Amino acid sequence: MNYEARLREKIAVKAQVDESMRIKSRERVDQLIKPKGSLGALEEITVQLAGIQGRLYPEIHKKAVLIMAGDHDIIEEGVATSQKDITKIQAINMTRGLTGVCALAKHAGADVFVHDVAIEGAVGCEAVRDCKVRNSSGNFYRGMAMSREEAAQSILVGIEAVERAVAEGYDLLAAGEMGIGNTTPSAAIVSAITGSPSHLTTGMGANLPQDKVLHKAMVIQAAIDRLLPDSSDSLDVLSKVGGCEIGAMAGVMVGGAIYGVPVVIDGYIAWAAALLAEGLLPGAKAFWIASHKSLEAGAQIAAAQLGFKAYLELGMRLGEGTGAVIMFSVIESALSMNRHMITFEEASFIVD
Amino acid sequence: MNYEARLREKIAVKAQVDESMRIKSRERVDQLIKPKGSLGALEEITVQLAGIQGRLYPEIHKKAVLIMAGDHDIIEEGVATSQKDITKIQAINMTRGLTGVCALAKHAGADVFVHDVAIEGAVGCEAVRDCKVRNSSGNFYRGMAMSREEAAQSILVGIEAVERAVAEGYDLLAAGEMGIGNTTPSAAIVSAITGSPSHLTTGMGANLPQDKVLHKAMVIQAAIDRLLPDSSDSLDVLSKVGGCEIGAMAGVMVGGAIYGVPVVIDGYIAWAAALLAEGLLPGAKAFWIASHKSLEAGAQIAAAQLGFKAYLELGMRLGEGTGAVIMFSVIESALSMNRHMITFEEASFIVD
Repeated sequence: MNYEARLREKIAVKAQVDESMRIKSRERVDQLIKPKGSLGALEEITVQLAGIQGRLYPEIHKKAVLIMAGDHDIIEEGVATSQKDITKIQAINMTRGLTGVCALAKHAGADVFVHDVAIEGAVGCEAVRDCKVRNSSGNFYRGMAMSREEAAQSILVGIEAVERAVAEGYDLLAAGEMGIGNTTPSAAIVSAITGSPSHLTTGMGANLPQDKVLHKAMVIQAAIDRLLPDSSDSLDVLSKVGGCEIGAMAGVMVGGAIYGVPVVIDGYIAWAAALLAEGLLPGAKAFWIASHKSLEAGAQIAAAQLGFKAYLELGMRLGEGTGAVIMFSVIESALSMNRHMITFEEASFIVD
Repeated sequence: MNYEARLREKIAVKAQVDESMRIKSRERVDQLIKPKGSLGALEEITVQLAGIQGRLYPEIHKKAVLIMAGDHDIIEEGVATSQKDITKIQAINMTRGLTGVCALAKHAGADVFVHDVAIEGAVGCEAVRDCKVRNSSGNFYRGMAMSREEAAQSILVGIEAVERAVAEGYDLLAAGEMGIGNTTPSAAIVSAITGSPSHLTTGMGANLPQDKVLHKAMVIQAAIDRLLPDSSDSLDVLSKVGGCEIGAMAGVMVGGAIYGVPVVIDGYIAWAAALLAEGLLPGAKAFWIASHKSLEAGAQIAAAQLGFKAYLELGMRLGEGTGAVIMFSVIESALSMNRHMITFEEASFIVD
């Protein structure tokens, strides 16, 4: 069976949360001793998790960031400040707890798993899970990012990573990434799916100088105008202007809906992946939780299209999953609210 | 010695952080393996704490929320939906771990200490620390909130609470509160100090209906117009249109600067207190860390006047210190970044 057929089989499910449990949870949250609605996002998150887990007292026991790593030939067009070897080095550093997302995961009590989806060349580090689809995604300014089959294969990497994580007991996930140059395919995906012109979706990535940002936007627009990705077909968009690790992140988000675990959405690369994921499995977004507001403006365009708003405004633009992992603690705070606050009935008085 | 003289003695210090350590910390943070500046607020917080603690690797060992509780006779004017007895009941509930801030503190690993600054009547619960200045702050629509001496006494309650907390080893604090009706004096303080008209600083508090919100704004404006609080004299503002527990919160913020510990600023009541505190001890704000964006618009007016921006946008408006305690984890994440990420030199490559 080819990859696309396998993918179709995996996503032949209905992304659905337990609506009656959501209603019960909302009723209970409204009875906690506080003015109705006054804990805002903490209340929403509790209700959402009650719907996902199908219980009034949702719990989180094991958290993980699934890092998808890949290189990009599009950097040949001068759209990034770093070279490919950094992707491999940082992927290895991630398995050793040395990068930004690892430092934050340590505080959050989360594990970090690194997947080679399209790193250039052999990685030579056993701790990096070998899921290689190809050596670098292609230069889509001149050709295509990958074939349609490779696009399906990339997404399956993410779905299977979730399947494994769930089997290992993880019940809160985030999709992270490492990939020099990957804000360029992210901007291209967001422009292709939302129709926003590339100058609105293109940002400085890892401190690209402003004149090069404009060049980057032109490269992206030219590719879209030439390849005409079909916004209603995620595989078409991913194969024409995407990147393998972005496809794998979309797979993680689809996997959350398939296997019934919440997935926290990080920054720009993640929001581009989220657009692909919701296209693949409509309704999957009911399993997602927003995190921080990336400084890349395109992230907000994608999030708004999906109906999400960021909770954390930390001025961050590192990627890796750093924003998502900070959100883990806010989610746990919400569940602590649900578990430890008493109700008006228990307190025998009414505040509101 | 009277209270004002004791207060003057306490604040006869220079609020000062270690500037050279701030510079060293910034240099180190810029060498961590990430594009320069890409961890935004986490970097700023690390540098700030390095300056406060005077060391390159700041640490947090013990965290506490200092809750200041008090009632308000201003509720006689129909500016609140609840009655006074709720303040006492919730103060007691806070010592039992049952309220919103307690539930969140549990997850954050923080302790909660409750102080009776102006609760109406005897509390009858030993766990609530008796620091009573008076029974309820006064109805400042008809009279004044308190005398100038009571204002000074209220602020001393907060300063002494920090002194005790620091002696007990706490190194990260937040000022929380419980007080039915206390968004009204908060709005009055913010209007008095920033000059913003009361309709911009008055909000729904604990779900006050919109027609009553306008009445509340009129009550506040009338009091300010009659009492003419001197915006440059925090004791004058506090005594005329404030509340004792708000004064005590200002004391906590001043205390942070006196005893050299960071204080996290919560929501609306806290920002009103912060305006008073910076007036009392200019420069104290170097010891403060913002947390969430309260849904009360006046909070942003006060924060902006002091040059702060909220980091968390969780749609919260409960008070108690709930936003601040969620921020504790973000602060610890920042320190985890500082401690666990490696530098470019250690990694032997350059990303940026």
